[in-house]
Amino acid sequence: MQGDFSLGELAVRFGLGLSGEPDLRISRVATLSNAEPGAISFLANPRYRKQMQSTRATAVLLGPEHVADCPVAALIDPNPYLAYARIATLLHPATEFAAGIHPSAVVSGSARIAASAGVSALAVIEDGVQIGERVLVGPGCIVQKGAQVGADSVLTARVNLYPGVWIGQRCILHAGAVVGADGFGFAPHAGTWVKVPQVGSVRIGDDVEIGANTTIDRGAIDDTVVEHGVKLDNQIQVGHNVIIGAHTAVAGCVGISGSTTIGQRCMIGGGVGIAGHLTIADDVVVTGCSLVSASIKQAGSYSSGMPAVETRLWRRMVAHLRRLDVKER
Amino acid sequence: MQGDFSLGELAVRFGLGLSGEPDLRISRVATLSNAEPGAISFLANPRYRKQMQSTRATAVLLGPEHVADCPVAALIDPNPYLAYARIATLLHPATEFAAGIHPSAVVSGSARIAASAGVSALAVIEDGVQIGERVLVGPGCIVQKGAQVGADSVLTARVNLYPGVWIGQRCILHAGAVVGADGFGFAPHAGTWVKVPQVGSVRIGDDVEIGANTTIDRGAIDDTVVEHGVKLDNQIQVGHNVIIGAHTAVAGCVGISGSTTIGQRCMIGGGVGIAGHLTIADDVVVTGCSLVSASIKQAGSYSSGMPAVETRLWRRMVAHLRRLDVKER
Amino acid sequence: MQGDFSLGELAVRFGLGLSGEPDLRISRVATLSNAEPGAISFLANPRYRKQMQSTRATAVLLGPEHVADCPVAALIDPNPYLAYARIATLLHPATEFAAGIHPSAVVSGSARIAASAGVSALAVIEDGVQIGERVLVGPGCIVQKGAQVGADSVLTARVNLYPGVWIGQRCILHAGAVVGADGFGFAPHAGTWVKVPQVGSVRIGDDVEIGANTTIDRGAIDDTVVEHGVKLDNQIQVGHNVIIGAHTAVAGCVGISGSTTIGQRCMIGGGVGIAGHLTIADDVVVTGCSLVSASIKQAGSYSSGMPAVETRLWRRMVAHLRRLDVKER
Repeated sequence: MQGDFSLGELAVRFGLGLSGEPDLRISRVATLSNAEPGAISFLANPRYRKQMQSTRATAVLLGPEHVADCPVAALIDPNPYLAYARIATLLHPATEFAAGIHPSAVVSGSARIAASAGVSALAVIEDGVQIGERVLVGPGCIVQKGAQVGADSVLTARVNLYPGVWIGQRCILHAGAVVGADGFGFAPHAGTWVKVPQVGSVRIGDDVEIGANTTIDRGAIDDTVVEHGVKLDNQIQVGHNVIIGAHTAVAGCVGISGSTTIGQRCMIGGGVGIAGHLTIADDVVVTGCSLVSASIKQAGSYSSGMPAVETRLWRRMVAHLRRLDVKER
Repeated sequence: MQGDFSLGELAVRFGLGLSGEPDLRISRVATLSNAEPGAISFLANPRYRKQMQSTRATAVLLGPEHVADCPVAALIDPNPYLAYARIATLLHPATEFAAGIHPSAVVSGSARIAASAGVSALAVIEDGVQIGERVLVGPGCIVQKGAQVGADSVLTARVNLYPGVWIGQRCILHAGAVVGADGFGFAPHAGTWVKVPQVGSVRIGDDVEIGANTTIDRGAIDDTVVEHGVKLDNQIQVGHNVIIGAHTAVAGCVGISGSTTIGQRCMIGGGVGIAGHLTIADDVVVTGCSLVSASIKQAGSYSSGMPAVETRLWRRMVAHLRRLDVKER
Repeated sequence: MQGDFSLGELAVRFGLGLSGEPDLRISRVATLSNAEPGAISFLANPRYRKQMQSTRATAVLLGPEHVADCPVAALIDPNPYLAYARIATLLHPATEFAAGIHPSAVVSGSARIAASAGVSALAVIEDGVQIGERVLVGPGCIVQKGAQVGADSVLTARVNLYPGVWIGQRCILHAGAVVGADGFGFAPHAGTWVKVPQVGSVRIGDDVEIGANTTIDRGAIDDTVVEHGVKLDNQIQVGHNVIIGAHTAVAGCVGISGSTTIGQRCMIGGGVGIAGHLTIADDVVVTGCSLVSASIKQAGSYSSGMPAVETRLWRRMVAHLRRLDVKER
């Protein structure tokens, strides 16, 4: 299934330096500690240097500063993790799928499905849907009325696209992802809530990845927007009319409240909560478990995640904080 | 698809004041900044007043204090957001569905399904289920043994009702919602865990909305209860034997631990965590990302979400807090 | 459906003390306050002692210190909750299922499915899958290429196993659980992200329970591992290459970042966030809504969840904390 390449071929194909025998054969990737001959490993984090000493890998991808320490052959690049990503993609290509519609899928006659696309077992494709070239609609996916999926995108399995949402090209959506459910919009009335129809949609750009069980709500009036190259981990909630700028990465369990705009190239740590109606600048980093409750106008790193300590010490810290207030009054 | 109404008709139907020409036609809603002629917009938050100046909407819904500023026709009400909700519902009604059972659905002969209900493609309806009048069971939904769904409720798609759960009338459940999975109950025994059977069920009242990928566990012995008019956003976890009082609204990513009772008309912000076995009074507001670790006996607003600041400043704040403890000992 | 046992039989079968008439019949469990005759209840938490006074249960399971207070018959054990778990399992056994493959399921000819296993309506079993004896694959589950499920495990409904994942024996996976989606791995490159193929898998041990909508990512190179007896609640996110030690229990809404190792018999409270590349010792307790941002080397209890107070007081506490920094500079 996997390819099999010589070190020399890999060095030429990806423009890497080579230390060692160019004819050595590589057929798969492995970690430094669990590698067997025929595998290539990588050293991106110096803390794993010790494990390199005893590796059984045939070769290691590393930065020029570590070549001298490497007991086996090496491919050399200033960004070894990027080079690793490319070699791993070559050695472990995505599984090919058969084009065509599985007989158990339920597909509307008014859907337009590219001949090179695959629609898997027990998928549902409703009226007016458009599925692009080489798209894979995995088993159990539900693509509702008028939704569109751009070329080369993958809905892995059990993905749910609500009516009218728009997915770009080369996107990957993981199992349980829901795009286009109603935003959380209710008008208060005499102690009860009156539903506000959510008439906007969702537009997802190209090269976006959406993790398992992540949810992206449709807009209240205008659309919710996820720009090109955004990477969303699992279990993220994106509220209605959020805009996420291009190439921003969001780690797992983040919640982004409605009508907030996040800039480009931001990195949002796991478990972060972001309030609604805010604007966050480009190139902002928010560390894990922080609460963003006001707009952020400058690039930089922001935090409010409180590190755990022994519970007894923690209780005293909380008590001190409360006491400060008593003192100052 | 949408209706088309004159401003005068809308004013009469909803009891609104009117400024401008009653014969103007309205066919859809729009935001102030993206409106085109034929659309009605609204001004509920004064911060969007500037956008009203240049709106191309045919009319704007607003409070009496803003009529003088409005460059186009206006419908006037002290609660313009509520009036907007009603007009939007009129202009953008829910899609109609065909009654009947899709041939690909798997429906038990012992299920009782109202003639006016719709069961969509690849839905599963098990033994003894009862589906009320005009209910829509969307594609891929699984309704397990003996579950009941009240009249006019909608399971949008891929909703999962475990055996015996009870859903009221006019509810909306979004994709990926799971009602009635086992609560998290285990008895410790010699360093391992022994499962405690979860024999209660879940009762959901009328007019409840449940967001995408939200989970509500069945009770350990008695039932988990969600009362009338409760609104739950996406990605919420409701533990076993929780009781959520009528008309309480819970934003996304909230976790409510087992056996906690929340009062009526509460508002729980996004990302809040609520410990188990607590009681929270009626009319309590908890702001986003707070931890409720003790019962709340008085109505009011409660918080512990720490606002993010620059990471360098945050590190110093955490160090100061730790130092307080050293000083005072 | 349920069994019906005498108190005497229960006492003998589970080695419990008995106070009262051994011929009394028990057919179900109930809470102290809602019991009817024929039910057995339990007292594990002294705060419910008052409710025991007026219970209509036929018998109560309790510790020896409470026998004198009990107005009805009693079964006596130092660990009444454990005894309750066993009696409840006897009285309320899991529903039996019919072995065999439902005609609407889509099952590959190359899958090996034990004759005693059940494959429910609209399940998908892909090529090379192995399903053990007495396994239940519930409705709408998707088991992808080469995945394996050990004997006596249950996939309740709409569970998603990605290719090649391995589930042990006697596991329970709840609706919406996703095992084996890609980990969140991207190499930065010129302001964009290059996907790193996730070529590892997931190995789940025996007697593991996985809650509704919980996600466990496949490893980047080596496998993600969940050891024997681990209990995971709903809505948990487990990153790639995490290792969770045997008999650890994790409450709802927890996020565990990639490459972190958690010890055995830990208890992780709801809403906790755990950073990546950490090591947590055996027998660690982390209380709810804490952030674990550094390795924990000693058993013990750790916290950083800040308890909510009135919002006005909270704002002052945050201001004081910020002011400390100004003072000390």
